[in-house]
Amino acid sequence: MNPATATPAEARALFRTTEVPTTAGFSPGYAQANLIALDKRYAFDFLLFAQRNPKPCPLLGVLEAGETTSELFAGGDIRTDIPSYRIFREGTLVEEVADARDYWTPTTVSFLIGCSFTFEQALVDAHIPVAHIEQGRNVPMYVTNIPCTPAGVFSGAMVVSMRPIPASQVADAVRVTSRYPAVHGAPVHVGDPAAIGIGDLAAPDFGDAVDIAPGTIPVFWACGVTPQSVVMHSAPDLAICHSPGRMLVTDVRDSFYQVP
Amino acid sequence: MNPATATPAEARALFRTTEVPTTAGFSPGYAQANLIALDKRYAFDFLLFAQRNPKPCPLLGVLEAGETTSELFAGGDIRTDIPSYRIFREGTLVEEVADARDYWTPTTVSFLIGCSFTFEQALVDAHIPVAHIEQGRNVPMYVTNIPCTPAGVFSGAMVVSMRPIPASQVADAVRVTSRYPAVHGAPVHVGDPAAIGIGDLAAPDFGDAVDIAPGTIPVFWACGVTPQSVVMHSAPDLAICHSPGRMLVTDVRDSFYQVP
Repeated sequence: MNPATATPAEARALFRTTEVPTTAGFSPGYAQANLIALDKRYAFDFLLFAQRNPKPCPLLGVLEAGETTSELFAGGDIRTDIPSYRIFREGTLVEEVADARDYWTPTTVSFLIGCSFTFEQALVDAHIPVAHIEQGRNVPMYVTNIPCTPAGVFSGAMVVSMRPIPASQVADAVRVTSRYPAVHGAPVHVGDPAAIGIGDLAAPDFGDAVDIAPGTIPVFWACGVTPQSVVMHSAPDLAICHSPGRMLVTDVRDSFYQVP
Repeated sequence: MNPATATPAEARALFRTTEVPTTAGFSPGYAQANLIALDKRYAFDFLLFAQRNPKPCPLLGVLEAGETTSELFAGGDIRTDIPSYRIFREGTLVEEVADARDYWTPTTVSFLIGCSFTFEQALVDAHIPVAHIEQGRNVPMYVTNIPCTPAGVFSGAMVVSMRPIPASQVADAVRVTSRYPAVHGAPVHVGDPAAIGIGDLAAPDFGDAVDIAPGTIPVFWACGVTPQSVVMHSAPDLAICHSPGRMLVTDVRDSFYQVP
């Protein structure tokens, strides 16, 4: 299968039987989603956390207890259509599996969260260089001192991703990404890393450090790692997440999430 | 007190002791919010309904069980700061009260929903005539055949408000209101009322009919009556709502809700 020409349904069918190293590059132009699945007793608190923290936790959809598919990925199965799942018990990673059906129960609620792949494509389309893509690395991510707005049992610090942007294009990067609130939206911080509690850009908490070219300014976006980090911190008995870089490929065009 | 110069805090303090006929005109430039308060056993379903139906049910904030204030109306009390409340039991209006403290319990969750006052001001500022304002009437509202996306126990048809817009300004009206997704956003329908199940524009289901000038096109926006109508249809044992036209005056500037 050629990832660049696979339909989302073809990509999901492949992932049901084949564990690819990343879903990046599959079905370009279609939104990919992060997964957090929790028992329904945590569902109101998590949904409220997402409502209160739309930048780190932009919700694309929710599968209610008992549901395993939705119109976001027609004919799919949330328990099998992601290439790899991480199983957390009491906040600790205990297993990585290709098929998560054994972990689903009739009271599991699944949250699909927007992914920065969508806005990165918009940056590239606007001729704004994206350093980690150009350097063939994962985006660098950092835990900040910016508190999320708590909701029920969930609270914690925001995790951000950083992209060094040429000074003359910072305004364009803000403008372009602000049109995609469903996938983290506008930056949360521009400039001095120390102001948001980041000690050393060369030592990210997740992902890879990138080379920062002269004349660029570090620009920070709220990151989808935040909800996972916040949920694990409160240690629910069971949480089922996608494995990093291996997401749900949806049927929704990136452009659907653009606001005026 | 001059409504036009009252701060939101002053307006709320007035409403604690004085039952005004409408909050329209108070603290112009600040967003007003509709209220639906429900027991927490309905809270996940209602929050999910809002997430799935952001046009009729744009959430500005949620007060968790036990909370009676929030940063949206600093120092206020959701149980007293609205001029008048409607109490519904099993979906039936049983009482209208100026002070709702007797109805609040430690498990009441309060949902604050965006109100079209905000986008109507944006229309006026863009020199787009708003017929019901010019004619001194309430906006006409209609039950449609457009189904909301169900969530848990909540399902039902969308209610829309209608504003006749000069044909040359329909595009501007779409552009202006699409920038305010937190207060119903872009129209859901332009033109033929019959196409969305409306038989007679002169006979609205709620509000007042307006005179429709030649050369105008009826434009329909999702309406905040929808969530109230959907909730009442499922007849929760107790629901506490604002009385029509008497809303919560928040500390949030209308302009805060504008997207690019």
